Formats: sequence, structure tokens, C-alpha cells
Amino acid sequence: MGFWKSLFSASEATAGTKPAESERYTTPMMTVGNSRVFFSTDREIDLYELEELCDAVGWSRRPLRKVKKAIQHSFLVVSMWEQRGTQRRLVGFSRATSDHAFNATIWDVVVHPDFQGNGLGKALMRQMIKRLRSEDISNITLFADPQVVEFYRTLGFMSDPEGIKGMFWYPD
Amino acid sequence: MGFWKSLFSASEATAGTKPAESERYTTPMMTVGNSRVFFSTDREIDLYELEELCDAVGWSRRPLRKVKKAIQHSFLVVSMWEQRGTQRRLVGFSRATSDHAFNATIWDVVVHPDFQGNGLGKALMRQMIKRLRSEDISNITLFADPQVVEFYRTLGFMSDPEGIKGMFWYPD
Repeated sequence: MGFWKSLFSASEATAGTKPAESERYTTPMMTVGNSRVFFSTDREIDLYELEELCDAVGWSRRPLRKVKKAIQHSFLVVSMWEQRGTQRRLVGFSRATSDHAFNATIWDVVVHPDFQGNGLGKALMRQMIKRLRSEDISNITLFADPQVVEFYRTLGFMSDPEGIKGMFWYPD
Repeated sequence: MGFWKSLFSASEATAGTKPAESERYTTPMMTVGNSRVFFSTDREIDLYELEELCDAVGWSRRPLRKVKKAIQHSFLVVSMWEQRGTQRRLVGFSRATSDHAFNATIWDVVVHPDFQGNGLGKALMRQMIKRLRSEDISNITLFADPQVVEFYRTLGFMSDPEGIKGMFWYPD
């Protein structure tokens, strides 16, 4: 109870608007090995390129029509791109749903295997957090597979605070 | 991995639209003790009445401006009303955020103490689940305080399936 209270008695800070509608942003380039990498909140993403990225990490395919709808109705989308000359390649992706006021939930965090182990996953998540915080979201949540719980912990995520459990509905 | 896969390789079922935009619905009256109770998805809720309900269960107050925004940007709102003659009283509330395609997260489940212990909390949650399922949402999630984990379990929610952990972000 104390946990929720501390979250939801949040200040009357300035109301944010949906990032996608107010502005797009790109970050300065980061140099990682031989690659230059940048982030974007533009949600006009080639769905086939996104599918290719998800294939690369072994996710099962999802209907592109539904993926498109989910992106449209996400509060925030952050993608990560490798830039080589004029060529751009999608190398990371994440999105969050939100009520635009209190809560956000991060879904579909993916980094191409060729780009893992360089701190880019963390950089991607930090972009997500920074952006959500700037929109006055006080409660940032996610559901982590066991093998990435530690990764999220290093970013400041806590599992089961005060015994709060993440739960999923299954048909009886 | 198998867990997410089974969720997200969902069928190409008919696309749903945001319930709030497509239709409102009310359920037939239920008789509980001396009261007649019905559910509604209409999100034009008196914010002071909602605050009173949340006060009754001891929640800390939240800025009404943000509560209004959160309701506006929720995918689904289900409220529960006691009807006596022409008088209606708000006795329960719940809402869900969603990407309108794959995932929904249920927040702010509240039942007035006078109406607890009659199965109305379960009826409210069943309305939420039914509605989300009818919109083709395959992954219904929530974060449960320890004292209500068992309540949600009886409704078919599972905690930490395949070790997936609910996580909350805290500043470093």
C-alpha cells in the first residue's frame, strides 16, 4: 500500500502530451565499435524490417496488421538505428503503453544479436525511461523473462516491490 | 520464451476498435442483498464521486486532472453502480491500458467496502476480462498487492508464469 501511495500521490507537475504527437526526436550519434548508432521516436517503422529484427532474436512472428496497430496505440516507441553513410539499419526497438498520466508498461524490447553486449540495450532502455519521466509518468513497469531480470535490475527496475506480483490472465 | 510465443502467435482474428469509441454497454441488473447493481463502460464519471470511492478504501488522493487524463487514455473503463429507484451510486471501478492489439494492463481496481464480500469484485473483473477478450487482446496483465494475489488467482490470473517477473522502475 505504501508503495502505491508513494507513486500516486505524485506532484501536480506539468501535464505531458503524447510524445508522438508533440515532437519526434533523435539523439546525437553514439559510436559503438565501427558503427554509429542513433535513437528515434518516429513510429513510421518498416514493419518488415521490424519483423526481421524480431526474427533475429527468435521471437515468433505476429500478424503485421496487429503489430502496426500496437505501434499506433503505444504511448512511446523508441527505435535504435545503425547509420553507415546514407544507409540506416534497424538494430533495436522498444515501446510502452500508458494512461498518459500515472502508469506506463514497456513491451517488446529487442536488440539485434550483432549489437548486443555493447551497452546498447541499456542505452535504449535509458531513452525509454528518460522519455517517460519527462512526460510525468511516475510508475514505469515491465514484465521480464527470467534471463533478463538482472539486466533490468541494473537499470533501476525492482521485482515484486513490497510483494506486488505481476500476474497474467489465463482462461479457466 | 514459450510463454510469450504462445501469446503472441495469436490468430488473425477480427480487429477490435477502442470500446469507448465504438459503443457503451450496460449489463442487466444484478441483485446483491437489498441492492441492484449494474456495470457500465461509460467513462463520463464524476471525478469527485470516484475520489470518494477511493477514499473509502484508503487510497491516497491523486490530482483529479491526472485521474481524468488517465481515464481518457485508458483502453477500457468498467464502473459498477448501485441503483435505488432513480438514484445511482458508484460502488466499484476498474480500468485498463492497452496497445489495442496484444497487451492490456488492469489498474485501479476498487470496490466500496460496503459492497465487498458479495462476489462483486469478481463480477467487476469478469466484466473487464470479457470485454478485453472480445477486443482480441491476448495478454491481460496486472500488478497485484500481496493481499489480493489469491483473489486474482481464483479469477484465472497466474503470478510469474515461467518465471516472468513484474518489475517497477526506481531512480538510481
